[in-house]
Amino acid sequence: MAQIEKIGSKTNEYAGPVGPGGKGLRKRFVYVKNPYLDSMDEDILYHLDLGTKTHNLPAMFGDVKFVCVGGSPNRMKAFALFMNKELGLEGSGEDVKDICAGTDRYFMYKIGPVLSISHGMGIPSISIMLHELIKLLHHAQCCDVTIIRIGTSGGLGIAPGSVVITDTAVDSFFKPRFEQVILDNIVTRSTELDKDLAEELFNCSKETPHFPTLLGHTMCTYDFYEGQGRLDGALCSFSREKKLDYLKRAYKAGVRNIEMESTVFAAMCRLCGLKAAVVCVTLLDRLEGDQINLPHDVLVEYQQRPQLLISNFIKQRLRLGDQTSSSPGSQSFSASL
Amino acid sequence: MAQIEKIGSKTNEYAGPVGPGGKGLRKRFVYVKNPYLDSMDEDILYHLDLGTKTHNLPAMFGDVKFVCVGGSPNRMKAFALFMNKELGLEGSGEDVKDICAGTDRYFMYKIGPVLSISHGMGIPSISIMLHELIKLLHHAQCCDVTIIRIGTSGGLGIAPGSVVITDTAVDSFFKPRFEQVILDNIVTRSTELDKDLAEELFNCSKETPHFPTLLGHTMCTYDFYEGQGRLDGALCSFSREKKLDYLKRAYKAGVRNIEMESTVFAAMCRLCGLKAAVVCVTLLDRLEGDQINLPHDVLVEYQQRPQLLISNFIKQRLRLGDQTSSSPGSQSFSASL
Repeated sequence: MAQIEKIGSKTNEYAGPVGPGGKGLRKRFVYVKNPYLDSMDEDILYHLDLGTKTHNLPAMFGDVKFVCVGGSPNRMKAFALFMNKELGLEGSGEDVKDICAGTDRYFMYKIGPVLSISHGMGIPSISIMLHELIKLLHHAQCCDVTIIRIGTSGGLGIAPGSVVITDTAVDSFFKPRFEQVILDNIVTRSTELDKDLAEELFNCSKETPHFPTLLGHTMCTYDFYEGQGRLDGALCSFSREKKLDYLKRAYKAGVRNIEMESTVFAAMCRLCGLKAAVVCVTLLDRLEGDQINLPHDVLVEYQQRPQLLISNFIKQRLRLGDQTSSSPGSQSFSASL
Repeated sequence: MAQIEKIGSKTNEYAGPVGPGGKGLRKRFVYVKNPYLDSMDEDILYHLDLGTKTHNLPAMFGDVKFVCVGGSPNRMKAFALFMNKELGLEGSGEDVKDICAGTDRYFMYKIGPVLSISHGMGIPSISIMLHELIKLLHHAQCCDVTIIRIGTSGGLGIAPGSVVITDTAVDSFFKPRFEQVILDNIVTRSTELDKDLAEELFNCSKETPHFPTLLGHTMCTYDFYEGQGRLDGALCSFSREKKLDYLKRAYKAGVRNIEMESTVFAAMCRLCGLKAAVVCVTLLDRLEGDQINLPHDVLVEYQQRPQLLISNFIKQRLRLGDQTSSSPGSQSFSASL
């Protein structure tokens, strides 16, 4: 029943020369792939507590250029506050409030052209958020949007605290694919991420030299315990040797970290014209153990590392934008950078 | 590579006559199926921000008899406050605080013998919580524990606001199974729930006659949009006819509601000796539409329905416990019921 889905039609693709800021002759809009959506009188984004009739989405979100997503609400609020400071908007204060305050499913903050959103844990949770976020960006007529997942992960054969920029998101079988159940069919989607963006982020990391950053494959699983070969769950039916054999095979296949959202994130963003990247810090080396037992202050510092890298990347993009074009959403921030 | 896992060994099973309160000659403990766990010097329940060295788990949780779980933190807090009132503990106040305050992944409240915990959305999110909850109940030496998921769902061919007590949890292909990836093997687990408990809950619902309650199959999917045949996601590659054909086939197979956690919940609880039930209210009839557009007050009232049913069930159990045994955890509440 499995089938491979055709992805990316020429008519929707961005055409024209692309600069480092993703700017060229034509704007790259965020698109939906759903013929039914345009005929709907109203679109209620239920889990975001937003809607096309209750909110003026173009006015609220039309200038968004960067979307940063991560599992933890607190971490995404911390990132919003950090960006607010970094973009020199600290005094205003009023922007750093939860836009999805009417629901506790997700939390969303907007700081100038940057949107910071939590997505919970696991593929289904981020998938619901992405469907509604992509519709939001589409309704708001956003263009040239870059989306980055900043997360935490388990490392493989690398020092805890290392930051991994994903070159390829793979599943539990080390394959670059995401299997989506549609009705009762299984459709296989590509999990390819934007290579230029990953390279740009890696170059940017060289200017933030106080922690190790590398490019590598990221393995995405449906489970934190049995699915990642942990020996410390409520259920464990395999030996320490089998675990290590699996993790070493993953390492050999190019996997450098393991998390729970990257494949569906890559697949959906790719289908909807969003340039996407995944940047995760590793909290432990899974070849050494399973439990996360870092002191609180070390954990906090590690979690700030992807934020610092992405903040530098965004500031660099906005500076470039100001020098090379009159793109809205960058001008107002350049003075403060 | 798929294999069927043997479940439930005789040595672990409850033996002896069972009364309505689950009481008999022997206590039924919550057990883990992991030979490595006992040899661990410390067990850090990372996503709950609890641990065996930092917390006295038997003292904190040893008297727990009922665990209620649901996706939304606010809903599980509301349920805790409601139970606090219903069990006559309203004045004390101090118990209704988030036990997992050190993390924002899950929220947990304890009200006498009742634990109320949020689990986020989707199989991976509830799975992480269940691994750590089951270890917590095991470390705390809890016995005779009943666990109930009180959730929201989409209905199939039944009036919105109906409450469905799950007789069988099925996957997207209408099969009573949960496929767990372990390392790179797929293991198929049974999703059978406790039939006596479902019956007891159904009988209890007859005493709460102001909303319709029924027994039926619950379909559990990995996705809210494409996986449930919605026409209003960012992606939709099927026709309205194909959608309706799928949903009608589900109805014919006995499915009365659709949600995103029941199969893994049933499978894990069964493996670890927890008598489990799933009780969800339906927010819409999926044969009629896809969007959830209920007025806020109706939505709030619907979400209270499973809470009301479970509150009545718990009070009934505690009353019976007081009449028929000297089980701790029931005596202190009977006076106020």
